[in-house]
Amino acid sequence: MGSAMAVACARAGAERTEGPWFTVIGIDLPNAQGRLRIDALNRGEFPFASTDTTLIAETSAAVQTGNLTATDDSSVLSQADVVVVDVPLDIDFTATTPALVLQPFERAIHTIGEHAKPGALVIIETTVPPGTCEHIVKPILKEWATKRDCSSFLLAHSYERVMPGEHYLESITAFWRAYSGADDHAADACESFLNKVIDTERFPLKRLSSPTASETAKVLENAYRAANIAFINEWGQFAEKANVDLYEVIDAIRVRPTHNNIRQPGFGVGGYCLTKDPEFAAIAARDLLGIGPQPFPMSELAMKINREMPLHPLALLEKRFNSLRGARIALAGISYRQDVADTRYSPSQTFVEEAERKGAIVSCFDPLVAHWDEMNRAVGFDFAQCPDVDAVVFAVPHREFRLIDAATWLAGRTPVIVDGNDSLTNEQRALFQRAGCEVLSVGRGIDVERRPT
Amino acid sequence: MGSAMAVACARAGAERTEGPWFTVIGIDLPNAQGRLRIDALNRGEFPFASTDTTLIAETSAAVQTGNLTATDDSSVLSQADVVVVDVPLDIDFTATTPALVLQPFERAIHTIGEHAKPGALVIIETTVPPGTCEHIVKPILKEWATKRDCSSFLLAHSYERVMPGEHYLESITAFWRAYSGADDHAADACESFLNKVIDTERFPLKRLSSPTASETAKVLENAYRAANIAFINEWGQFAEKANVDLYEVIDAIRVRPTHNNIRQPGFGVGGYCLTKDPEFAAIAARDLLGIGPQPFPMSELAMKINREMPLHPLALLEKRFNSLRGARIALAGISYRQDVADTRYSPSQTFVEEAERKGAIVSCFDPLVAHWDEMNRAVGFDFAQCPDVDAVVFAVPHREFRLIDAATWLAGRTPVIVDGNDSLTNEQRALFQRAGCEVLSVGRGIDVERRPT
Repeated sequence: MGSAMAVACARAGAERTEGPWFTVIGIDLPNAQGRLRIDALNRGEFPFASTDTTLIAETSAAVQTGNLTATDDSSVLSQADVVVVDVPLDIDFTATTPALVLQPFERAIHTIGEHAKPGALVIIETTVPPGTCEHIVKPILKEWATKRDCSSFLLAHSYERVMPGEHYLESITAFWRAYSGADDHAADACESFLNKVIDTERFPLKRLSSPTASETAKVLENAYRAANIAFINEWGQFAEKANVDLYEVIDAIRVRPTHNNIRQPGFGVGGYCLTKDPEFAAIAARDLLGIGPQPFPMSELAMKINREMPLHPLALLEKRFNSLRGARIALAGISYRQDVADTRYSPSQTFVEEAERKGAIVSCFDPLVAHWDEMNRAVGFDFAQCPDVDAVVFAVPHREFRLIDAATWLAGRTPVIVDGNDSLTNEQRALFQRAGCEVLSVGRGIDVERRPT
Repeated sequence: MGSAMAVACARAGAERTEGPWFTVIGIDLPNAQGRLRIDALNRGEFPFASTDTTLIAETSAAVQTGNLTATDDSSVLSQADVVVVDVPLDIDFTATTPALVLQPFERAIHTIGEHAKPGALVIIETTVPPGTCEHIVKPILKEWATKRDCSSFLLAHSYERVMPGEHYLESITAFWRAYSGADDHAADACESFLNKVIDTERFPLKRLSSPTASETAKVLENAYRAANIAFINEWGQFAEKANVDLYEVIDAIRVRPTHNNIRQPGFGVGGYCLTKDPEFAAIAARDLLGIGPQPFPMSELAMKINREMPLHPLALLEKRFNSLRGARIALAGISYRQDVADTRYSPSQTFVEEAERKGAIVSCFDPLVAHWDEMNRAVGFDFAQCPDVDAVVFAVPHREFRLIDAATWLAGRTPVIVDGNDSLTNEQRALFQRAGCEVLSVGRGIDVERRPT
């Protein structure tokens, strides 16, 4: 997110005769990974895998224009009028009760307090627990202003609503933003900054009353999404047994404006955001806001359901094979989302771990990923022909999978096909069946094609 | 619903030179209530309280034109080419496990099978558990066709998506419809009928593969709504303690197309549909479809949360007064929804029952209801001045409440004011505070107006 935001800021106003509004310096950590990203950016390359060709071109343009560079030297903070903070703030889910991993974030705020120009605008863009600006960032910045005996910093909060994929950069610059300031002066300064970076004529800004309000807005947005994904899961499983195609049903429901956000059954929830953000408010209540434990029954249940979702397609296979011991499974798709290469907290990981624990032999394929860092294993990319397996599980609706021509691809093999995430078209599933494969679908009854007689 | 649908059908095609498409006979039960409704309709009056002036005028027009009458004589079924079924199918929540109350519905289907014209189109419009057409209606109709040795009936399912209130009739004729047939012939006949009654040019029909699919669609729509109401409840309670105005936050979130269905905190869920429909699929799995118990964790939790929601504003008062014993509470709004008079399963009922159980003395006011049938008590309608009470709880955002001028209305009294359902404007709440009242809000921190310093 930090890299993409840096590019967005560096290209803001590039069409003006006076040139871009800002000179942007990206700061990363002085370690091996940080160094790789810094060097990539300074060569004019976007430092992460991306399918967004605009983002890639604009990165190169900004570096060439000379108003985008990267460094691990925090002292450059002293030159900045605006500091945008995209430092991760994680949750440790391995702890007995989920706990905030605050240190890296707090260290970054200390670094800003130590080096930033007196009176600089500090915008927190990281998704944080509600109360973070008020109870963590503000005291640290105040402490440094006192220590340095300088004018205090302007503290604002404005969260991103990016969508990774082909329109990543545009999802920053051409989308609605909410923001807030610790005081009116900071809110005004943040508004003025966002007006330069974002197309606020088409996407008007929304000012909220306090940083705690806009921090809440961000985690609520992701909790809403997570809850709706979890909600539809039980209806997908019902549809499988009731011999209904829930995707067809959902198409009929989504025409209603009050119901157009309804989600569809899938393989599970992954990525960096939906897997943790819904937890932030509960943790904030306990650890940050001093209001004591707050119950979040729907949000908590949703996270649990979402985590366990990939076990359902596995259960379909286990039921089919009686036992998974020795079953050879090809898993098609390991990223957490279609058409992106991001494998962080992917539901495919849950699937593979549980399948292997039950004795299955799993091979993985993904057109966008060559190495699965989190699982430390190579990912097959030659998926041109069906591998010699007992089952093929499609976990992600990558574009490439919808191009598979069943008969050619199978070449006579007849593995069980699991469409785990609406990854195949109706026609593909029918062709797989015609070629002799048994087809199981998440969210669809086995013979929904057949009209009840 | 049956009465409104009868008017919609009777007025379909009224603008044609040939006149309306259909002659409509409404059939009700031969009991006292049914008789009252039948007589009202035959006088040209819509037989329920309604704020829809169009519906009232069109009822009168249809009766005058002579193509809408009502009767309790089921033998008129023999004249009908199309039978639309709007007979209630309820759930008995007082049973150990929620159980279907099938008898009245089954009796109606038997009556249709006994009397209807051979080959007539029977459209089930009642919200029913998935599988009802397939496993209940179809066998009964088949049984009668065999018994009568006549050609079989055409069975279709098409559910309503009406919205009670000022545009009730329009919500039938100018809105999207999904439908299905037990076979293609029935589906075709249903499509042709709906094309006459509904503006399908603007709101195209959506045919689903089976009655079980469209039955599922209907209950899923209401379960989705119920789940989203339950979801936001916990965030409203968090906001109250975190000193955030969740309504402000939600305004900022709803601009996102993927999040525009997000709900806002409120007083609870009532009415005939959202309180029971989410339960239908679980019951159907167990009792109708033969697929065994199916878990619906999110939907079940949502119903539980929604039922208990009115206890939260009561808890706010209990905390404020330490005890509710002897506390005099005026409850403003007893219908289940703003600007309607329908009190069925109203959350206000839950509030009153629990408040009185805890020793409070509750007086009720509603601009649209004079007598609360379910609670068998008179409802005050003189709400022109604040009654002499310790607290006034606004439970419904009726239009009339937003016209209250705080200082005049209070006339020097200073009860605690609870805005339980975003019933008051920001200005009203501020004026109540200025007049000396303590104001508590569901979904808002106590001093959200004050910016943190």
